[in-house]
Amino acid sequence: MIVIKVGGGAGIAYDTLCADLAALTRAGQRCVLVHGGSHETNTLAEQVGHPPRFVTSPSGYTSRYTDRKTLELFLMAAAGKVNKLIVERLQGLGVNAVGLSGLDGRLLEGPRKAVIRIIEDGKQKVLRDDWTGTIEKVNTDLLHLLLNAGFLPVIAPIAASYAGEALNVDGDRAAAAIAVALGADTLVLLTNVPGLLRAFPDEHTLVRQISRTDVEEYLPLAQGRMKKKLLGASEALTQGVGRVILSDARVAEPVSRALTGEGTVIA
Amino acid sequence: MIVIKVGGGAGIAYDTLCADLAALTRAGQRCVLVHGGSHETNTLAEQVGHPPRFVTSPSGYTSRYTDRKTLELFLMAAAGKVNKLIVERLQGLGVNAVGLSGLDGRLLEGPRKAVIRIIEDGKQKVLRDDWTGTIEKVNTDLLHLLLNAGFLPVIAPIAASYAGEALNVDGDRAAAAIAVALGADTLVLLTNVPGLLRAFPDEHTLVRQISRTDVEEYLPLAQGRMKKKLLGASEALTQGVGRVILSDARVAEPVSRALTGEGTVIA
Repeated sequence: MIVIKVGGGAGIAYDTLCADLAALTRAGQRCVLVHGGSHETNTLAEQVGHPPRFVTSPSGYTSRYTDRKTLELFLMAAAGKVNKLIVERLQGLGVNAVGLSGLDGRLLEGPRKAVIRIIEDGKQKVLRDDWTGTIEKVNTDLLHLLLNAGFLPVIAPIAASYAGEALNVDGDRAAAAIAVALGADTLVLLTNVPGLLRAFPDEHTLVRQISRTDVEEYLPLAQGRMKKKLLGASEALTQGVGRVILSDARVAEPVSRALTGEGTVIA
Repeated sequence: MIVIKVGGGAGIAYDTLCADLAALTRAGQRCVLVHGGSHETNTLAEQVGHPPRFVTSPSGYTSRYTDRKTLELFLMAAAGKVNKLIVERLQGLGVNAVGLSGLDGRLLEGPRKAVIRIIEDGKQKVLRDDWTGTIEKVNTDLLHLLLNAGFLPVIAPIAASYAGEALNVDGDRAAAAIAVALGADTLVLLTNVPGLLRAFPDEHTLVRQISRTDVEEYLPLAQGRMKKKLLGASEALTQGVGRVILSDARVAEPVSRALTGEGTVIA
C-alpha cells in the first residue's frame, strides 16, 4: 500500500501523475491519493472578491485563515474542482477512482481550532471564526471498503470536527495520518521541488537520504511548507510507515520515480 | 428504500430536510439523497464573470448550456459546495453521510451530448463544447457497498461519459435512474412548490393523485422544470418504482410529509 500526496500548487502535472497511477494500479499496486487545493482556492477567492489571507503562528508556521466564507470556497475548489478533475482524468484512463473529502463518512476526524493565535506586525493577536483543525482519527472502514472493492480513493484535505463541522486541514498531515492508519509501506509527498534542498531554491543541493532519527536536524533547512512535510514525515515514520519520499511532481512518472528512490528518502 | 431528490433552487430549507432524514434513518429507513446545484452554479457563474446561459431545445425543454468552464463551475457548486454542506449538516445530526458525484466509481454513466440543437430567435442552431449527457447505466455496486455499511449516500447530479468525462446531468432524471436501479419503493421529488399545480402558481390547485397510466395527460399542465419531473416520474414507474411523490421542500419534515401522501402522488 502506498499513499501519495500531490500538492495544490500551480503547475502540478496532473496528467502525468494520473497516467503513472494508472500504470501502477494496473500492475496491482494499491494506492490512495491525497491532494491539495491551495492554488485553486486562491484563484477562486480572488475571482469572487474574498482574497486569501495567510497568517503566521507564534511558532513560525504559515497557514490560510479560513473564515466560513473561505471554508466554502475551499470546499468548492478542493472537493469540487481539484478532486473531480483528478477523478475524471483517472476514469478516462480506466482507473475506477472515487473522490471523497475527509468529511464523507467522517473519514478524517479531529478537533476544530475555532480560535487561532497569530503574529502580525510583531504582535500576538487572536483570530476567531476559523474553520481549521487537526486530524486525530482516521476511520479506515470506508477506505478498506473502497480499496477491497477495487476503487482508488482520491481524498480532498477536509476533515470533520467531532461535532461534524467541515474543517480545512493540512494535506501533508492528512496524507501522513492516512498512511499510518492504513499501515502503508511508503508515503510519497509530491511537490514543485525535487525534495528537500540544502540551499533552497538550488535544485543541485538535493538531500538524497535522511535517517528517521535525524529529521529534527534537517528542519532548519526546510523553507515554507517543506517544514510541515518534514513534520508529517517524522510523524508517519514514528507511527510505523516504512519510508517517506519527498519528490518532484513536475516530471514524467512522478510516483514510479519516487518509488525507485528519486528525491529525498527518509527511512 | 426511498430515493429523495431535493432541488437546487433558491430557498431550499436544507436544515429541516436533513433533520427529517436523520429521524427517518434513526427509524431504520434506508435512504439515498440526490441534490441539485443550479442556484449555486448561477451565483458562482455571475461572481466569476461567466454568467449562465440557458437554451431551449426544439422539443421545448430548457437547460443550461454547459461549456467546459461552466462544467467546472458546476463541479465546484454542486459537488463541492452543495454536496459537502449537506453532508456537513447530516454529520452534525449524527448521520454518517458520504457525498459522491456520479463520476465517482462511474456511479452514473451515459453518453455525452457534445453537440446540442437549440432554438434561438425562432431559428434552429447548433452548439458545440457541451458537457451534458443522459444516464443509461447506474452502477449500483458502490451504492450497495455504502448502504450495507450503514452510510447515507448524498449524490451530486454529475455523470461519467463512457470515455470517463464529467457531465452535467439532470438531477430529477438521475434520482429516477437511481430509484429504478435500487428497486426503490418510493421516489420523492422535493421542490419549491407543493406538487403539480393545475393552474401554476396557484397552490390551491394542487393535483393530489395521478394514475401512472395518466401521466401523459398531465404534461401540458407542467411548467418549466416540472415537465422533466413528470417525465422522470413516468420513467421510474414504468421501470418498477412503487410510487413517485412530487412534494414541497419548504416545509418541516418534508420527506415524512411526502411519505404520508402530501403533494402529488403518482402510483
